[in-house]
Amino acid sequence: MAQPVRIALDAMGGDFGPAVTIAGAATALARRPESSFLLFGDETMIRAELGKHPALAARAEVRHSAVAVRMDDRPSVALRQGRRVSSMWMAIEAVKKGEADVAVSAGNTGALMAMAKVCLRMMAGIDRPAIAGLWPTLRGRSVVLDIGASIGATPAHLVDLAIMGAAMARIVLGVETPTVGLLNVGEEEIKGVEDVKEASRLLRETPIPGLAYIGFVEGNGIGQGVADVVVTEGFTGNIALKTAEGTARQIRTYLRDAMSRNWLSKLAYILARGAFEEIKGKMDTRTINGGVFLGLEGVVIKSHGGEDAIGFAHAVVLGYDMARSGLMTQIRETVAIAHRSAPEAAQ
Amino acid sequence: MAQPVRIALDAMGGDFGPAVTIAGAATALARRPESSFLLFGDETMIRAELGKHPALAARAEVRHSAVAVRMDDRPSVALRQGRRVSSMWMAIEAVKKGEADVAVSAGNTGALMAMAKVCLRMMAGIDRPAIAGLWPTLRGRSVVLDIGASIGATPAHLVDLAIMGAAMARIVLGVETPTVGLLNVGEEEIKGVEDVKEASRLLRETPIPGLAYIGFVEGNGIGQGVADVVVTEGFTGNIALKTAEGTARQIRTYLRDAMSRNWLSKLAYILARGAFEEIKGKMDTRTINGGVFLGLEGVVIKSHGGEDAIGFAHAVVLGYDMARSGLMTQIRETVAIAHRSAPEAAQ
Repeated sequence: MAQPVRIALDAMGGDFGPAVTIAGAATALARRPESSFLLFGDETMIRAELGKHPALAARAEVRHSAVAVRMDDRPSVALRQGRRVSSMWMAIEAVKKGEADVAVSAGNTGALMAMAKVCLRMMAGIDRPAIAGLWPTLRGRSVVLDIGASIGATPAHLVDLAIMGAAMARIVLGVETPTVGLLNVGEEEIKGVEDVKEASRLLRETPIPGLAYIGFVEGNGIGQGVADVVVTEGFTGNIALKTAEGTARQIRTYLRDAMSRNWLSKLAYILARGAFEEIKGKMDTRTINGGVFLGLEGVVIKSHGGEDAIGFAHAVVLGYDMARSGLMTQIRETVAIAHRSAPEAAQ
Repeated sequence: MAQPVRIALDAMGGDFGPAVTIAGAATALARRPESSFLLFGDETMIRAELGKHPALAARAEVRHSAVAVRMDDRPSVALRQGRRVSSMWMAIEAVKKGEADVAVSAGNTGALMAMAKVCLRMMAGIDRPAIAGLWPTLRGRSVVLDIGASIGATPAHLVDLAIMGAAMARIVLGVETPTVGLLNVGEEEIKGVEDVKEASRLLRETPIPGLAYIGFVEGNGIGQGVADVVVTEGFTGNIALKTAEGTARQIRTYLRDAMSRNWLSKLAYILARGAFEEIKGKMDTRTINGGVFLGLEGVVIKSHGGEDAIGFAHAVVLGYDMARSGLMTQIRETVAIAHRSAPEAAQ
């Protein structure tokens, strides 16, 4: 058996704490048996949950922390009160110390990113962190980044996002040379913001190993799956992601209302239940749960705070896959090559 | 009978030209009998279509133009070749000359905006133009702007967008004091870009007559209808709109595939056809067709180039309603008041 992937869990994060994180870890272990776990948080609560999952208990070490970052703590408050002592910090620090290969938390995004930056620091050559997410498309899934870590982006940062997103896509999508597009307001070269146009020029003129730049992608192209990786700065990326989620929820509401209107539509719903379940599965946010923090000296995964154990398990598995496949090494090597061949894009 | 609303039509615009624009105008006239039309374009083609619509022919005057702006002309090319002589320019110029109350075109957006800016000029006190669109929501419809006219926005421009969007919402939604939200990446005051935060401060500290500012709205809030008016700069607004359209199309594809899977799901589809038609109606882009150009000295409506006659009719009716209800006057008056009470927001 190969060396197991050591996963550091902030067991206290998320809306439900250990009830979800421990059950989720147990599910993840069943899917990725070569995992071992460091569980940070209230020891009594964690042990109570671990009792229900003996397989996980056998592969886990509990490390007590009395401090849990709250979901509504400001990042600055979380850092002041939780540095070194909170379950969130301790999980990240395990990666820093080399005791774990990846940290996973369902805690609040701002606090997690602030702690990750302070504890792990930025990767050499990368100026600002990003969060990458999976987006369900008509062709399967795409990687979209940045979905909310950094507001605004220079052309060079957009190129770095392309490199980091491609590294993640290689692992998650299993594509050797992922296609990469820049999110823009039009496909013609005349449109859009200067920084996006300049990033496009850099990506065209200096091909980067391991990614195929395909040009601009419009908002409606993401869901069509026109690129494996869609790159944009964090403000627009976050708005796009949440707008898509909102639209999906809106149509789900229309559909639910329409199918319960009268006995005919209720009957139709029963007849076509399999079809509806299939659509529900395709839009299930649990299967795409897990934002990958990129640009740091270590792998940190953010699980959505409101997801259940199945969703949390997906985030843990995502973290496992990233660590197992050497995400950090892939990014480091490509960044080094890209910055050598296009030094002006490095700063 | 009150004075009719005089509508200047670029009959040559859009993917289908007079076949759609003239039929659309005829439908719009049936819905808004107090309309009269100036039809700009190839006289032979227009008269051929007018022959099919005698009621419209009786209320229309044809003005010949041999030049039609192409859908893929760059704005600069369209201006150089089409200024004064194209059907698009002549329709806008009719508004400028006071011969028409509103201009409607399904021609290319960039060219239409460029011509509108040159011909009509900016409204006093407004720095940059915007395009506002209607967005179907769970509560009905909302006005979203800017959906692509101007990239980036100062805090003062975001305040102007709030004023102009509220004026449009008052007319379209029939709400005396529309609620207005600023699109942002989080609801907490700590998040988001500086310009958006500053605009929020301006809107909070200096209440503007005729609008109720409710704070930040996230991407998923638009479709839920949390605000009558959602304000953002043109890059993000365009991405959000197209992402929502793409997501809706994606789910439609899932649904169509799922309902044609086997005889059971096909039967279900037939039984629930009424329900499916209702959902289709709610997401029908034709009923929300028409982007309103704001910030100019005149009302110009952009119809989507690919819409059919029903869609084009919606854009014409939208233009009618804007002109009839004095959109320009409403904006002018509120801008004057707002800039008097908060002079630092004026520039």
